Amino acid sequence: MQQGGRLTIPTELDMVDETLKLISDLDADAIRDCDGTEMPAELQHCGAKIYATYYTTRKDNDWAEKNPDEVQQEYLSTDRYTADSESLTIELMKGFHTQQLKVNDLDDPKRWWEVMDRTSGEAVCISDWEYNRDNGTVQIKTIPFHVYTVSFLAFLIWDPVHMYNFITNDWKDDPHQCTLDVRQPKTQAHVKEKLKLFCQNHPEINVIRFTTFFHQFTLTFDDHKREKYVEWFGYSASVSPYILKQFEQWAGYPFRPEYIVDQGYFNSLFRVPSKQFRDFIEFQQIEVCKLAKELVDIVHSYGKEAMMFLGDHWIGTEPYGKYFASIGLDAVVGSVGSGVTMRMISDIKGVKYTEGRLLPYFFPDVFCEGGDPIREAQQNWLQARRAILRSPLDRIGYGGYLKLATEWPGFIDTIKQVVSEFREIHEKTADSKSSTASFKVAVLSSWGHVRSWMNNQVHHSIYHREIYSYVGVIECLSGMPLDVEFIDFDDVKNGLDPSIRVIINAGDRDTSWSGAEYWLDESVITALRKFVHDGGGFIGVGEPTAIQHQGAFFQLRDVLGVDEEVGFSLSTDKYNDCNPDHFIMRDLSEPLDFGEGQNRVYAYGENYQILAMDREYTQMAVNSFGKGRSVYFAGLPYSPQNCRLLLRAIYYAAHQEESMLEYFVTNPDTEIAAYEKNGLAAVINNTDRMQKTSVIIHGREEETLDLKPREMRWISIH
Amino acid sequence: MQQGGRLTIPTELDMVDETLKLISDLDADAIRDCDGTEMPAELQHCGAKIYATYYTTRKDNDWAEKNPDEVQQEYLSTDRYTADSESLTIELMKGFHTQQLKVNDLDDPKRWWEVMDRTSGEAVCISDWEYNRDNGTVQIKTIPFHVYTVSFLAFLIWDPVHMYNFITNDWKDDPHQCTLDVRQPKTQAHVKEKLKLFCQNHPEINVIRFTTFFHQFTLTFDDHKREKYVEWFGYSASVSPYILKQFEQWAGYPFRPEYIVDQGYFNSLFRVPSKQFRDFIEFQQIEVCKLAKELVDIVHSYGKEAMMFLGDHWIGTEPYGKYFASIGLDAVVGSVGSGVTMRMISDIKGVKYTEGRLLPYFFPDVFCEGGDPIREAQQNWLQARRAILRSPLDRIGYGGYLKLATEWPGFIDTIKQVVSEFREIHEKTADSKSSTASFKVAVLSSWGHVRSWMNNQVHHSIYHREIYSYVGVIECLSGMPLDVEFIDFDDVKNGLDPSIRVIINAGDRDTSWSGAEYWLDESVITALRKFVHDGGGFIGVGEPTAIQHQGAFFQLRDVLGVDEEVGFSLSTDKYNDCNPDHFIMRDLSEPLDFGEGQNRVYAYGENYQILAMDREYTQMAVNSFGKGRSVYFAGLPYSPQNCRLLLRAIYYAAHQEESMLEYFVTNPDTEIAAYEKNGLAAVINNTDRMQKTSVIIHGREEETLDLKPREMRWISIH
Repeated sequence: MQQGGRLTIPTELDMVDETLKLISDLDADAIRDCDGTEMPAELQHCGAKIYATYYTTRKDNDWAEKNPDEVQQEYLSTDRYTADSESLTIELMKGFHTQQLKVNDLDDPKRWWEVMDRTSGEAVCISDWEYNRDNGTVQIKTIPFHVYTVSFLAFLIWDPVHMYNFITNDWKDDPHQCTLDVRQPKTQAHVKEKLKLFCQNHPEINVIRFTTFFHQFTLTFDDHKREKYVEWFGYSASVSPYILKQFEQWAGYPFRPEYIVDQGYFNSLFRVPSKQFRDFIEFQQIEVCKLAKELVDIVHSYGKEAMMFLGDHWIGTEPYGKYFASIGLDAVVGSVGSGVTMRMISDIKGVKYTEGRLLPYFFPDVFCEGGDPIREAQQNWLQARRAILRSPLDRIGYGGYLKLATEWPGFIDTIKQVVSEFREIHEKTADSKSSTASFKVAVLSSWGHVRSWMNNQVHHSIYHREIYSYVGVIECLSGMPLDVEFIDFDDVKNGLDPSIRVIINAGDRDTSWSGAEYWLDESVITALRKFVHDGGGFIGVGEPTAIQHQGAFFQLRDVLGVDEEVGFSLSTDKYNDCNPDHFIMRDLSEPLDFGEGQNRVYAYGENYQILAMDREYTQMAVNSFGKGRSVYFAGLPYSPQNCRLLLRAIYYAAHQEESMLEYFVTNPDTEIAAYEKNGLAAVINNTDRMQKTSVIIHGREEETLDLKPREMRWISIH
Repeated sequence: MQQGGRLTIPTELDMVDETLKLISDLDADAIRDCDGTEMPAELQHCGAKIYATYYTTRKDNDWAEKNPDEVQQEYLSTDRYTADSESLTIELMKGFHTQQLKVNDLDDPKRWWEVMDRTSGEAVCISDWEYNRDNGTVQIKTIPFHVYTVSFLAFLIWDPVHMYNFITNDWKDDPHQCTLDVRQPKTQAHVKEKLKLFCQNHPEINVIRFTTFFHQFTLTFDDHKREKYVEWFGYSASVSPYILKQFEQWAGYPFRPEYIVDQGYFNSLFRVPSKQFRDFIEFQQIEVCKLAKELVDIVHSYGKEAMMFLGDHWIGTEPYGKYFASIGLDAVVGSVGSGVTMRMISDIKGVKYTEGRLLPYFFPDVFCEGGDPIREAQQNWLQARRAILRSPLDRIGYGGYLKLATEWPGFIDTIKQVVSEFREIHEKTADSKSSTASFKVAVLSSWGHVRSWMNNQVHHSIYHREIYSYVGVIECLSGMPLDVEFIDFDDVKNGLDPSIRVIINAGDRDTSWSGAEYWLDESVITALRKFVHDGGGFIGVGEPTAIQHQGAFFQLRDVLGVDEEVGFSLSTDKYNDCNPDHFIMRDLSEPLDFGEGQNRVYAYGENYQILAMDREYTQMAVNSFGKGRSVYFAGLPYSPQNCRLLLRAIYYAAHQEESMLEYFVTNPDTEIAAYEKNGLAAVINNTDRMQKTSVIIHGREEETLDLKPREMRWISIH
């Protein structure tokens, strides 16, 4: 019997009939409005649950105009300017968009700004610079040929997401929505009252979908209305003197703008976080979650559910942080851009259910000439499905303009297929967990658990040439029959969970993901050597354990059996030969792909076997160290074949080659997810082509399947 | 009238007739023996000058056996070993060849060895380790899972070059020649006496060709007789307790093995040199040059000339060092592997003449099936010729087994052509200097002048994937109409020579060539900014001025207009567009080739123009800074086209675009060298194909030439 429900669709004012037809066709059980759309009154009693997209921080310009001191602020840094004499004048807003940001000169610049000498690394004495309110410049007494920046506060007078949507959709008349700082006392009281009123006036609404709480991730535009700085994880726009004074009290030391500005890197997740930044986000989490709980309590007091959108003004909620569960949300909804971003939602604890908004978003940037929304939907589903089989979402949904979707020939049929497979998963598995290996796999970085499924990412599932060879690692993991943990270096130092048998370290040198200076910590190094020596597995990707120290660049080069040539050991001959005959290499059908890879890694020691080389250098190798094993990859972009390589590498590193065959399919373009309690397994074809694959259960080949493009086939495993 | 002479050829015992014929055919004026050959008595009065290859340090095993304490020593480090308990036993000679090296346990290990904890970076207390003489191991009290190495002294019981020649030529019966330490008192006296006797007994010999003086560059073999560690510049095999005690007195602080072992990198030229290593090579130069002078004086006292081979045991002579001229040599001879290595010889001051040994060396590794000695000779000459036109050698020669050369069909004709062109250069130019730009170009590195024409090299003209994109810079320069200087960071700090108008910085991050921590020196940074701001030119190749500091990776990113994305600024959007329309790009005929290049460089600021991109990243850009200009190249392997790019880049950076056309040829596969005093210019075709090229003199096109493959054409420039 086919289940219905578990599906949310967007609607809008002029789409009442189409919405009703779609509710019926797709058996949707919830409808929602979106930014730029409104819920039609006619649908209030259509039988579906009604979500109201709710903004605490914007759509209230009246209030913003009356309370300019409680508009949200952001720390900005000017560009870098070189002094060619003993004075320098810097125009603060140069390169920023003055419609988005406005210098905060209400609060004392000398208290809250900082002029930095980027040559010496020191702040310029406050008596050596002056702000000129009339022309928005700072004049600095300088040392000739030093470089200077000014860190200053600005008001977010145009909400970044509204601005983005406005530009993307080419809106014309909509007034620019200002961002309120809900943390400040007047606005906080006002927002609470407004929420109460809204709940009271909208008995038809079942779910308040907070989009989101208080602080927008950093999304700054330049003077051409182009994106200038975008970090989905960024805290730069969560500041105000009001908050920072509280932070000083909590932290017990004075705040400096540099803690946020961070040399102009603004604490990108790729930076090893400073103590002060860790303190700051801890403080923000405490305060954001406390206030969010108060809003959620209001929603609950009206008998409604509270749902949070994982995005936009999500900063400070940190779903994998210590305080998130205390908010008391009923649900989280987020955008599913890949397996990784699916897991980022579905693994969240502390909510009753999770919902994934699948792609494409019904926006004119995809539903247009040259766009291929059907293919996007299929690809999105292929990547999401393999992850959903491991850690299911409770619901899925779509967002944007319904009109665009219904008018695109064949698009609704594509969705229908996706929805049907999604429901089938729930129906067949009855929410039992798919079978996983007997051991855990841990991904080690400076961030650990709080950034679960966020490793090596710049912006929510946006491709960057510098990251895809690393993001592939967690993308592969997102759909694997493995329990995955995200750990940090303190977890290593404090004693690893003994169920962890394989540790993965993937990232570029100097970044938080690889670990940088943590690899100089004797206790980290020795603990990991002992872990592997005693039989554990270690997998390095790219520049693992990398920092120059005492004759080594990869600090665990003894464990990994590889190191990187940084130029200092060119005089040492390296006699590296490739021998690809190995357990890990058994299922190859395509050329190896290490993405951007690393091209100066060589094998080292007496216990290695090189599995792949690029001319004289190593792209893939295994090594034994004591009773343990390691595997090195130069890079690992997501592909079905790389999933298979990583799967084999993990089982090899764990000394569990045989148990890999517990539930296994021979063709790497296919995967199997077994549900032992239910006696069923799903075999999926992750490609757009027909695939033949043999199914192995408990080590024995059971049957050979011919799978249609993208097919999911359920088989009995009794 | 064609000149004769200026040519040295090798001979051997059974080649008397062939030698006489060749002397006549090639009009050679000198003959020489080589390692493994002997001078036939019949040639003593053939009319040619006679060189005797003279070894101070070897071919005297009797002496070595009687004076085992005065055999040359080398600092070795064992491989890195990880302790898995509280003790660790390391076998010292594991991985070394026991026929080449033997542990020195005559001198107190506790005084001269060091056991290093490579995890903590500290030396293990001497009471916590013991040397076991019986089995050649060191037992160490360890901290579990720390990594250890032992630095120890070993005797060089088989001379590295003799071993290399022995293996390469598959010699069988020749006894392994031991290396003597000529610096030690007994051997020093013995060697002097022997030299006197040799001079006395060989009145027929005109030139003592020292091959070389006292210390072999580091050339260590592994236990399979393969090269293990090779550095042509290495000082590791120039040590002994006798010398090190003197060093301690001279330097005024105690010596540590780590000063030589350097974490296992052995002070590779790629390392920014430590103060202690700089001190050590200074001390060695003083002592080596002093003793070398004594030997040269002996030679002179017998009315003979003293010539030094630039190679083998050349360590401590440093021809670009402060003490070289004091040796009083008549000549230097060296191997010409390229334009760079040619200049490394021909630019040496303090000798009466220079001689280049062209390639190929007549050894069976080239004169064999699959080898192509003719092509090697032609290519070698093409690269040497363009450099010789700028800074001529006085003589050329060949080495090895004459038999191999005379028996190879067509080879002697090839040489004849080379020799004839070489003489033509001398005849036409009458030793006047070819015309150069009115300004100087300086190559900036941590090494500066003392390593002139040695930048970014591992071993004398050996290709490495990691270096060719940088060596190309000086290879291009070696044949350009420019006065080139090699400067270090002290030269920058102490005030640049005002005739320098363009500074080049080329190398990988962290290396001595790029400069590493020197770029944190405020006085360096501000001096260079001022230099460019006032109108100077700066050319960066690869990772110039690179070190992470205060929001920048290229510390002169303001000057260069580019920086490298190290992962911290991925959130910052880069709107880089390519515009190849530029003075520098005018003569392109082939695809651009940046070699290994850098692939994460982006343009930055308001004054750049990107000339070439690899997808989103910049491979070549120009920038203006104040009145000055800069040019960035991702890499610059040697090719005729890249010579042209660099030539244009230099004239552009110097604001001297017009003066480039003083003497110019339009086709980049050709070059022109003008000799104003003589009213002549040589136009050369640097390729194996016909080339058409137009000659521009004083900015006016004068004529168009059709050049045959490899042709050198002399034209009048009056």
